[in-house]
Amino acid sequence: MKATAKAHTNIALIKYWGKRNEELILPTNSSLSITLDGFYTTTSVAFDEDLSEDIFVLNNEVITGEAYRRVSRFLHLIRETAGKQNLYARVNSVNEVPTAAGFASSASGFAALAAAGTRALGLDLTHEDLSRITRQGSGSACRSIYGGFVEWNMGKREDGTDSQAIQIQTENHWDVRVAAVELNSKMKKISSRAGMKRTVETSAFYSGWLDSIPNDLKEMKAGIATKDFEKVGAVAEANCLKMHATTLGATPPFTYWHDSTMRVMQTVQEMRKKGIPAYFTIDAGPNVKVLYLPENEEQVEKILKDIPDVQNVTLSKIGPGVTYL
Amino acid sequence: MKATAKAHTNIALIKYWGKRNEELILPTNSSLSITLDGFYTTTSVAFDEDLSEDIFVLNNEVITGEAYRRVSRFLHLIRETAGKQNLYARVNSVNEVPTAAGFASSASGFAALAAAGTRALGLDLTHEDLSRITRQGSGSACRSIYGGFVEWNMGKREDGTDSQAIQIQTENHWDVRVAAVELNSKMKKISSRAGMKRTVETSAFYSGWLDSIPNDLKEMKAGIATKDFEKVGAVAEANCLKMHATTLGATPPFTYWHDSTMRVMQTVQEMRKKGIPAYFTIDAGPNVKVLYLPENEEQVEKILKDIPDVQNVTLSKIGPGVTYL
Repeated sequence: MKATAKAHTNIALIKYWGKRNEELILPTNSSLSITLDGFYTTTSVAFDEDLSEDIFVLNNEVITGEAYRRVSRFLHLIRETAGKQNLYARVNSVNEVPTAAGFASSASGFAALAAAGTRALGLDLTHEDLSRITRQGSGSACRSIYGGFVEWNMGKREDGTDSQAIQIQTENHWDVRVAAVELNSKMKKISSRAGMKRTVETSAFYSGWLDSIPNDLKEMKAGIATKDFEKVGAVAEANCLKMHATTLGATPPFTYWHDSTMRVMQTVQEMRKKGIPAYFTIDAGPNVKVLYLPENEEQVEKILKDIPDVQNVTLSKIGPGVTYL
Repeated sequence: MKATAKAHTNIALIKYWGKRNEELILPTNSSLSITLDGFYTTTSVAFDEDLSEDIFVLNNEVITGEAYRRVSRFLHLIRETAGKQNLYARVNSVNEVPTAAGFASSASGFAALAAAGTRALGLDLTHEDLSRITRQGSGSACRSIYGGFVEWNMGKREDGTDSQAIQIQTENHWDVRVAAVELNSKMKKISSRAGMKRTVETSAFYSGWLDSIPNDLKEMKAGIATKDFEKVGAVAEANCLKMHATTLGATPPFTYWHDSTMRVMQTVQEMRKKGIPAYFTIDAGPNVKVLYLPENEEQVEKILKDIPDVQNVTLSKIGPGVTYL
């Protein structure tokens, strides 16, 4: 009744931005991501008949409050799936992702938890089944089940049984790199959940966002298939800008960007003018991820590190899917 | 056959952002502005039977090229209106508006030119007639005919005969101030004309922008009528953010913002948290205008001047409409 799994975080090149069902975490649009080798979570789940409640330890600290409740609710879903409702677990997670700084630690966290939890209860699931369960812990986590290039098909059914991720290409298809640029800034002020919700409910641009997704996905997949870095980068950057534009059209308007976020964006665009192919993408926070090719790694890293207010630049290759330890 | 007029620039609180007819300069949405006392153009127009072409002197420099052709084309419209097609003019303009830095010098410029030019040819026009002619020189200039709070009704007719500005409130209605914040930056890279065009033709958010205008206008007018500064400021800021969001949804995407633009925006929002009512608006360039009330002038000026990369802060009251000298 014990299992350990490792899962990597992912960054979306076509963003998940809006839910059609908050409870089941069903998205309003399909999304596409790459799994990152550099950021991951390792989680052990041990179910134990002697426990009277779940215990969640993250980076050697016992977690309580909302984060605990979210994990426990998710364990309950696994227990239900296995028909073992009254069995509690000790969860031990080690996170190699900077928490709550715009890096989706919940993606690797819930993917590892889902993989370890279901295996600990002896469930034999396909990757698609596992992705669908993972989705209910954290939407973007459903993409972290796979390595490489991953698409989360939004699905159409109201019960969510057709909303899960599939792998488009493995991590060995194409060596694209990502520089995660951390800025000097505190915890993000508006969570991605809250920002997404306000945007869906109030943004003047939300229907424009949704209408533009099918073409972005088509172009992105074509770019990945033919290893057309310029196309993949341009579509990812444009899609990110659209996502952030929707927040400016919300009531009241808001943005995840800081002035330093904009400085990194400008620097990336200047790199391109100098002939270095690099493109940015930004999630629901101020930090920036920069896509580049291996041959430009040294230059890209140096230029990014030299930007004022950049605290840290971490380089990553494309990573694998869930593994069991 | 000579006249001199002075006209002030204006800043839009509800932005003019898109043309439905490029030739006649007919907008896709109505807009609303305040005329600024601090920025103006004084223009003399002298028609002379001995001239064989127009001469345009701006700030003591003879102007050629595209700027000259734009002025000459506009003079031709005035000549046609007066039935004096073969009469050329010497135009002498003095601009008290920083050119091409996001301050609409074309607004005060074309308003003064239209007023002086039509008067020089003896045309006796209502303000609405004059506004309609002015519009064909530069769209936003049609609002500078009036002082105070001004609305440009987009009109519906294809020939533009119902597309002109009207005054909502005079400059004596309410003492709202504007700080024009100039940033250390070169000439803007994408003109407002080009940016507007690309946005109308390609932005995923353009229809969302248009759909949101009627409510913004209604709220803005209610705020002006009741002198509700918080309402006027919040609607202006939200409208500006929406306008700029549309550029992020264009193909290819672009923005008029610099990192320093964002820094000023953040500072204004921080001022509000400290209890100083201040709101920003931004036109098609990196500079920022800040709306505030007279009692906060000293504080607002000091805070804005202390922001890194701010080159200049110019304060202005609400100004009058066209005057003849």
